[in-house]
Amino acid sequence: MDYKEAKKILLKKVETVGIENCHILDCHKRVLASDLITKLDVPNFEKSPLDGFCFRAWDTKNASVDSPLEFEIIDEVPCGFVSNKKIGAMQSIKILTGAKLPEGADCVCKYEDTEFNEKTVKIFRPFESGENIIHIGEDIKKGVLFAKKGDIVDYGIVGISASLGIEKLEVYKKLKVGIISTGTELVEVGNDLIDGKIYNSNRYVLESILKNLNMDLTYFGIVKDDINKLEEVYKNAIENSDIVISTGGVSVGDYDLINSTFKRLGFEIIVDSLEIKPGMACLIADSHKKLIFALSGNPMSAITSFYAVCLPVIKKMMGYTDYENKKIKVILKNSYNNKSGMNRFLRCKIYQEGEKNFAIINDKQGNIMLNSMIGCNGFVMVEKKTEAREGMVLDALLIS
Amino acid sequence: MDYKEAKKILLKKVETVGIENCHILDCHKRVLASDLITKLDVPNFEKSPLDGFCFRAWDTKNASVDSPLEFEIIDEVPCGFVSNKKIGAMQSIKILTGAKLPEGADCVCKYEDTEFNEKTVKIFRPFESGENIIHIGEDIKKGVLFAKKGDIVDYGIVGISASLGIEKLEVYKKLKVGIISTGTELVEVGNDLIDGKIYNSNRYVLESILKNLNMDLTYFGIVKDDINKLEEVYKNAIENSDIVISTGGVSVGDYDLINSTFKRLGFEIIVDSLEIKPGMACLIADSHKKLIFALSGNPMSAITSFYAVCLPVIKKMMGYTDYENKKIKVILKNSYNNKSGMNRFLRCKIYQEGEKNFAIINDKQGNIMLNSMIGCNGFVMVEKKTEAREGMVLDALLIS
Repeated sequence: MDYKEAKKILLKKVETVGIENCHILDCHKRVLASDLITKLDVPNFEKSPLDGFCFRAWDTKNASVDSPLEFEIIDEVPCGFVSNKKIGAMQSIKILTGAKLPEGADCVCKYEDTEFNEKTVKIFRPFESGENIIHIGEDIKKGVLFAKKGDIVDYGIVGISASLGIEKLEVYKKLKVGIISTGTELVEVGNDLIDGKIYNSNRYVLESILKNLNMDLTYFGIVKDDINKLEEVYKNAIENSDIVISTGGVSVGDYDLINSTFKRLGFEIIVDSLEIKPGMACLIADSHKKLIFALSGNPMSAITSFYAVCLPVIKKMMGYTDYENKKIKVILKNSYNNKSGMNRFLRCKIYQEGEKNFAIINDKQGNIMLNSMIGCNGFVMVEKKTEAREGMVLDALLIS
Repeated sequence: MDYKEAKKILLKKVETVGIENCHILDCHKRVLASDLITKLDVPNFEKSPLDGFCFRAWDTKNASVDSPLEFEIIDEVPCGFVSNKKIGAMQSIKILTGAKLPEGADCVCKYEDTEFNEKTVKIFRPFESGENIIHIGEDIKKGVLFAKKGDIVDYGIVGISASLGIEKLEVYKKLKVGIISTGTELVEVGNDLIDGKIYNSNRYVLESILKNLNMDLTYFGIVKDDINKLEEVYKNAIENSDIVISTGGVSVGDYDLINSTFKRLGFEIIVDSLEIKPGMACLIADSHKKLIFALSGNPMSAITSFYAVCLPVIKKMMGYTDYENKKIKVILKNSYNNKSGMNRFLRCKIYQEGEKNFAIINDKQGNIMLNSMIGCNGFVMVEKKTEAREGMVLDALLIS
């Protein structure tokens, strides 16, 4: 099945998994489940931006360098405090940076422009009403939409929420993701490598990517190529997860038992292979509205189908409104002739030079896994039967 | 002090804080403390890329469609197992995808190109030695440097490490960062806003940014403008942290007590203001080789000096070799005339259009904090007394 078609079908099937209230300090990278509107003006009082004296501007209209006017100092108000005095004619209150402007005052003059003693302060020029005042709502105005349902919580949203006294945000629940590694050939790290076996890497790659997206992961272990065992583990995994991702057993060989396992469990197989390279071998099934992604055991194939199809579906379940993979235009630094009848996702290194974005396609010479995983931060997409030449501008997926 | 000069001095002062071994599943985004070299070939045996039969290529040299050659099937080897039989002349072993090539065999023919029963298999063409074989080290070759000290652990490093059976990586210890909010005017979220006070937001912004960098954070609370209390909290904080970041109290007003506090504590003041706008008010001190960053209480100033000077220093302490802020070139979408004698860090929105990067400078009209924090993912740097005009290409810091 065309991967875009598969993605479309799967995206239609999934929904978010619920909402919870989360403290703003624990919300980083979570997805907002409701719009956020500023519920306060910040500041919610007029305040002074500097250390000085406040008074009525009206009283200063005849002040000049030659004939300064003298004001009586009736109080002092540090930041965080409020004066209970009201300023009248020719009166002044000493005010500190950030303190609330006392009643009656409508302007502030900084220390340096005055002469003062304990009882009086001299003003040498006329002031306008509102001069040197931070107005109500100057930082944040009340009633403004500042973040939308589906936005990812970043430090800006956290900072504005804190400024407004919002302690908890409504976010989507963490997705419970079950991970299964299948294959008799697999050995878990920390154990000795027996002859004919290989270390399991898919689990670790998937967990790394998913952890970064803030999910609740459960690993159901390595399952040997034994249909009874597979049936038991997949059943348990899907019952305890919102979505299950497994690797291995999806080709068409004698020991590729996932298809049979799914049939025995009554899972509906929605996708039985994807028209992309690598990543063709892939089974996607539905069990009572929960999806199971059975990816290839080959690490490069698994990761390609994961990014092409699985990740957008997961992001939609997490509440992202912007759940599609982030595409950018890149200028190719080398060429690739895709002679095959499949769309190719070519691992590449995307980088910026000057104000432009470039991509070097990973040449598959030599160490396949090493070259594809290290230093690659994207995929360049080359359509089937298409030659991508150096200098062309193509779409790339950014996957850092 | 010029911010670049300040950064240079501070970077010279700091070192990493130690090394620990960390399980690969807990290493995501940690910084490598040693180079990683592949210690195995992957695979470390020759294996079959498909389901088929293996035999000696030499024996097939006279095979053709018209006169196929018949081989005796002496064993079957599933993936993850090893045959203890050795292939001799005109002998074959059934081999499954990923299984180790048995002794004596040097090529594989897939099922579909054979005719077979339980005892024999017919081969219809000559094979070359090595045909349809995954060679030793094809995925990963032994003895190759695949990650360097100072690299950030990503899923590629985790995946390759897992493939090699590496369970733990040597990474730099998490940085212990102490956070202090100073100011009598501050109220913590979750409490009622008393008249003349404002909610603390700096703590939440800093914690959000630092959490994302994988640090051990300790919050030492809000401290009122009282020099004895300040002295006690700063002393405690620096004793229990690798670095301390505070906000507030660094202007030159009557209640800006941090300078006096540092003097009483015997901290050496290295920087007493930064030549950037916003972010000028800033004290940076040294206490027995530990740094204290006392940033402005104004959120926009605090965050600017944090990114300009503090973050690169923190990253160096974390072990990053690439600790400087990530700069990219952007094309300006609007203009800004910096008439002041200070370098300006202008909050902006950086985005990609086609293959190029653009930036819209945040206009400071209206809600200052809201506009600067929401949707801004970078700073455009405009030198003092310089006019930045629409269409010009400038350096920007990316801070998402």
